[in-house]
Amino acid sequence: MTFKFDILKSSPEGRLGELVTPHGTIKTPAFIFCATKAAMKALTPTQMKTAETQIILSNTYHLMLQPGGETVKTLGGLQKMTGWNGPMLTDSGGFQIFSLGHGSVAAEIKGNRSTNRPKTLLSITEQGAKFKSYIDGKMHFLTPEESIRVQRNLGADLIVVLDECTPYNVDKNYTQESMRMSHRWALRSLEEWRREDNGTQKLYGIIQGGIYPQLRQESCEFINEHDFFGTAVGGCLGAHKTQMHDVVSFTMEMVRKERPVHLLGIGGISDIFVGVRQGIDTFDCVHPTRLARHGGALVKPANNPQKNREHLNLRNSIYIKDSNPIEEGCGCETCAWASRGYIHHLLKAKELLAFTLISIHNVYFMNTLMTAIRCALQSETLDQCQQEWCSATN
Amino acid sequence: MTFKFDILKSSPEGRLGELVTPHGTIKTPAFIFCATKAAMKALTPTQMKTAETQIILSNTYHLMLQPGGETVKTLGGLQKMTGWNGPMLTDSGGFQIFSLGHGSVAAEIKGNRSTNRPKTLLSITEQGAKFKSYIDGKMHFLTPEESIRVQRNLGADLIVVLDECTPYNVDKNYTQESMRMSHRWALRSLEEWRREDNGTQKLYGIIQGGIYPQLRQESCEFINEHDFFGTAVGGCLGAHKTQMHDVVSFTMEMVRKERPVHLLGIGGISDIFVGVRQGIDTFDCVHPTRLARHGGALVKPANNPQKNREHLNLRNSIYIKDSNPIEEGCGCETCAWASRGYIHHLLKAKELLAFTLISIHNVYFMNTLMTAIRCALQSETLDQCQQEWCSATN
Repeated sequence: MTFKFDILKSSPEGRLGELVTPHGTIKTPAFIFCATKAAMKALTPTQMKTAETQIILSNTYHLMLQPGGETVKTLGGLQKMTGWNGPMLTDSGGFQIFSLGHGSVAAEIKGNRSTNRPKTLLSITEQGAKFKSYIDGKMHFLTPEESIRVQRNLGADLIVVLDECTPYNVDKNYTQESMRMSHRWALRSLEEWRREDNGTQKLYGIIQGGIYPQLRQESCEFINEHDFFGTAVGGCLGAHKTQMHDVVSFTMEMVRKERPVHLLGIGGISDIFVGVRQGIDTFDCVHPTRLARHGGALVKPANNPQKNREHLNLRNSIYIKDSNPIEEGCGCETCAWASRGYIHHLLKAKELLAFTLISIHNVYFMNTLMTAIRCALQSETLDQCQQEWCSATN
Repeated sequence: MTFKFDILKSSPEGRLGELVTPHGTIKTPAFIFCATKAAMKALTPTQMKTAETQIILSNTYHLMLQPGGETVKTLGGLQKMTGWNGPMLTDSGGFQIFSLGHGSVAAEIKGNRSTNRPKTLLSITEQGAKFKSYIDGKMHFLTPEESIRVQRNLGADLIVVLDECTPYNVDKNYTQESMRMSHRWALRSLEEWRREDNGTQKLYGIIQGGIYPQLRQESCEFINEHDFFGTAVGGCLGAHKTQMHDVVSFTMEMVRKERPVHLLGIGGISDIFVGVRQGIDTFDCVHPTRLARHGGALVKPANNPQKNREHLNLRNSIYIKDSNPIEEGCGCETCAWASRGYIHHLLKAKELLAFTLISIHNVYFMNTLMTAIRCALQSETLDQCQQEWCSATN
């Protein structure tokens, strides 16, 4: 059997599982790192593996525009092309289309309404979404079927249905209409996936419904009753963290327990603990690598000279002559030899190596966090684990 | 004995040697890679070692301005700070000061007279050179003694005297005056080095004299008679390759044979063969990593689809769907899994990983070239070796 999801233990603190794919087994809860354009920014696959990574994802939106699904297929599919050769997920392309289209869904989902980006979404119809390429302005039309076809060419183990991702500022009525269209798209995605299913990919349905419990319930019931391998929790999760936690909480009460559940786009450390407690199995977020590119290194609050924060800002001049590693006792490749002072110098000198070194640390940090969470679930000590890893201010 | 230079074999084709330093032994002829600001651009020390690198260099000019010699010393010196922990060389800072000062010595030495850079050199006197920092405009005064003090803080195994690097467009008279001042600076450098010599660093003198045989002779005699560990061939080597080869040729007839000889800033593949035949032991050049940042991957001409060139331009759209490695049969980390098509995609998508992957290949390529040259010197088959590695047009 090439795919399987086993729940090894379930408790009020969360659940431990194993997600088996043709490219390897993922111990859950797990963090999925974003290799947006089929590359972990500044990291080789060897560095990702040494940092104990289990699974990465790529974005269909970016790859359908460049280099195109056919090209990726010619180059052996994502796992071979990227040299990663481990488990992978692709999203449907919807999030970026609607994010860029509506201005910035990403910001709005997280409660930040700045909308400075150029709008490239031209129309959303029952058939699909028409948008302009951010690369060359060329027109594209993405349908649920086309998203599955592209994802088939990309070849990730876990793939996702196309949905419309609604921003925070739309009302309940729009959210409901959009959700029902996303449900119809989900069925079309499932149909297209089934048409050429050869056992190498499994499909996740997405729960929509915004911040409205009634809609979330309708969406859960719909996704639950159809034959999806996994469940993703998507759409608008609210304007602030408390609301996001509420939305995840009442949604998770209704999802089918035997399927693996992925929480789309969420990966802050305290959010992960909240998600784990609700039974979420996998998380993804660009945070660890994006933070690295801004000079931010994740550390446990107790190890942070900049107290009560979840990262150090290595651009800060307090680190100029600091010969300590990013985090004392860390087992990553970077902390084995590189000092904060050296990385501070690399950032100041605009050396690409800075991003590589911090990314190695941040990826290892997240993987170590997830290992600690799994151990804590085993020993039923998640509260202590959370105290150790989360800042008191979170 | 922490330092030693042994000539293992000498023939009309060149010579084989071993240069022993406190941080390891370098088999010569060897290529020295440029980690200008104490970082190999986009490569970790582990990647450098896996690519079979023997020795790297850093530039005193950049490091004295940022983060400063004292900071590097506090962080354990270059070898520890960078995690390289192998043999290193630093230059004196002179080349960059005079290069930026005169416009672009680097281009002129190689016969290219474009001089677009801002001039930051304010004055050259018998005492030293006054210049403005390219980072913050702050005034600096570099003397021969200060260069040695900075290099002592940096802590490289092999260090170099301060010299004025004269551009191609100066006349014989200026070249002669400049050379004699550089000789006086060389003695002051030697004096300062001797003052605190503790056996951890060795000093190279630099042969000046531009393109004038008589001046080169005077410079050789001067450097030969003083107690330098090694000889560097510097200054203007001519306006074109033939002239450069002539200058190196008549200079090498006069240098002391028992000392290791470094040819400053030269590292084109055919130039290396010319240098080896003249008895040069070490070369340095930014070419392999700079080329990588422009998407250029070094290959033997026979392996190049773009015939008779020493590199492939991976930005070329002929590589979009090319599933071959950069070079068939190459043993580098990149060629083990990455296709030309994938690297082409990474370049188009502006992913930093492209530079890392090509740099790994180019560094390994240069190290493999030097190994091939050493084998050929052993078996006295340098002509065949050159035919295999050099483009017919060179």
